[in-house]
Amino acid sequence: MVRFFVAPETLQSHALVLSGENARHARALRLKEQEQLLLCDGQGQECLCQVVETSPDITLSVLERRPSRTEPAVEVRVYMAYPKADKLEHVIQKATELGAYEVVAFPSSRCISRPDEKSLKKKLERWQKIAISAAEQSGRGRIPQVTLLDSFSQALAHASTADRALLFYENEDAFTLKMALEGSYRSVSLMVGPEGGLEPSEVLQAREAGLRVCTLGKRILRCETAPLCALSAVMYDAGEF
Amino acid sequence: MVRFFVAPETLQSHALVLSGENARHARALRLKEQEQLLLCDGQGQECLCQVVETSPDITLSVLERRPSRTEPAVEVRVYMAYPKADKLEHVIQKATELGAYEVVAFPSSRCISRPDEKSLKKKLERWQKIAISAAEQSGRGRIPQVTLLDSFSQALAHASTADRALLFYENEDAFTLKMALEGSYRSVSLMVGPEGGLEPSEVLQAREAGLRVCTLGKRILRCETAPLCALSAVMYDAGEF
Repeated sequence: MVRFFVAPETLQSHALVLSGENARHARALRLKEQEQLLLCDGQGQECLCQVVETSPDITLSVLERRPSRTEPAVEVRVYMAYPKADKLEHVIQKATELGAYEVVAFPSSRCISRPDEKSLKKKLERWQKIAISAAEQSGRGRIPQVTLLDSFSQALAHASTADRALLFYENEDAFTLKMALEGSYRSVSLMVGPEGGLEPSEVLQAREAGLRVCTLGKRILRCETAPLCALSAVMYDAGEF
Repeated sequence: MVRFFVAPETLQSHALVLSGENARHARALRLKEQEQLLLCDGQGQECLCQVVETSPDITLSVLERRPSRTEPAVEVRVYMAYPKADKLEHVIQKATELGAYEVVAFPSSRCISRPDEKSLKKKLERWQKIAISAAEQSGRGRIPQVTLLDSFSQALAHASTADRALLFYENEDAFTLKMALEGSYRSVSLMVGPEGGLEPSEVLQAREAGLRVCTLGKRILRCETAPLCALSAVMYDAGEF
C-alpha cells in the first residue's frame, strides 16, 4: 500500500487533504478514488485512508487510526563516531531500513573527520532527509531521528540509559553480543568507534559509564559494517524475523 | 598481526620467500627480522611465520601450520539475483567481512541488469579482487569464491544442497528466519531476488526445489540490505558473536 509521511498535527483533523510534495507524489502515482493508502506521522501512528476525490484536491476519508504495524517492539539506537566520507549516510540509510529508533553521531579522539559547526547544520538536514526517504521506502511508521552530540562523554551518557548499552571493540574477544542480550530488554544502545578505533582510555571511560564491551566475532568489521551487523542481530534476537 | 594471502602450494614448502605484491607490501610495512606474520592460503589453512632475513629477499621460517582461527564454523552462501549498479560489489565486500563462504550471482526474470558474457568475465575478475581485498582487511582465513551462474534454476539447484536453503521474499509474513534455523546446521544458503523482486512463479519454483521461503520482518529491505541482514543474523544464531 502507498504510504505518505505527514506532520503529526495533520493526522488529527477529520478532513484530510494531501498537499505539497505528497500531492505531487500521489498525482504521479495516479491514485484513484476509492483507493486506500496510509498516512504516517513518522512517530509511530498511522491512518488508513481512502481517496474520496482527486480533483481539485486529493481528499481522503479516515478508515482507521492505529499504531504503526511495521515498527519493531524494541528501541535500538545506533551510536557512531564520525566516520570518513559518506559512511554515516550509508549507516543512516541502512539502519533506518533495519528498524533503528535513532542514529546518534559523536566525535571521538581518533576521528579523522570532524565536521565544523557550520557544515554540521547543513549535513544534519541532509542526513535527516536520508532517514525520511529510507523510512518511506522501507515502510517504517517512524522516522528515526538523527542526533549529533558534541562529545564522547555526552554520547556515553545518552547511550547508557538503555536496558542494554553496548560498545563493540575489536580487542574484546570473550564477551559476546549473545551474552549481552540474555534476558529481556526493551531498549538497546549499540556504539562503535571510528575507522582508527577507540583509544583504550575511551573504552575504559565507556565501561565506567556502564556500557558493556562486546565482540562481534573473530573478523574485523569496518566501522560502517559493525553497527548494521549488530542491529540485524539484535532485531533477530528480539524476534523481529 | 600482518597477514598475507599466498598460493596454497606455497604454504607446503619449508623455505618460504615473499614475492611479488606481498614482498612489496612487506617492505612498505618495514617488516623486521624476528617479526611474526601469518601466511594464509585463502582456503582456511594458515602458517604462523617469523621473518629470518629481509635482504636480498624476505625469507620466513614456519613456526606453526594450522587451520585458520578466524573462519566461522558454519558455511553460509549468499545467492543474489544480479542487482543494478555497484550493489553486488557492496554485497561481496560486506558478505566477505561478515564471514560468507561464497557469493553466487544469477539472473532472474525481473533483473534489470544482465551483464553479457564478455563483460561478465571482466566483472568476475573485479568482483573476486574485491573479495580478496575484503578478506585481507577483515582477517579472513578463506577468500570467498564469487560464482556466476547462468540461470535461476541453476542457482536453485546449487542453493538447495545446504542444510538450510532459504529464500527471502517480501510477501511471506509468517515463516521467520528464526523458525528456519531451529535445530543444528552446518551450511546455509541465503537467496534474495533483484530490486523488482522475484516473480510468484519463481518463488513457487524455489519451493519446489526445496528452499524455505522466509520473512526478514515487517520492513521492506533493499535487495542489497537483505542478504547482509540475514547473514549477520545467521552468524549470530550460529554462535559467532
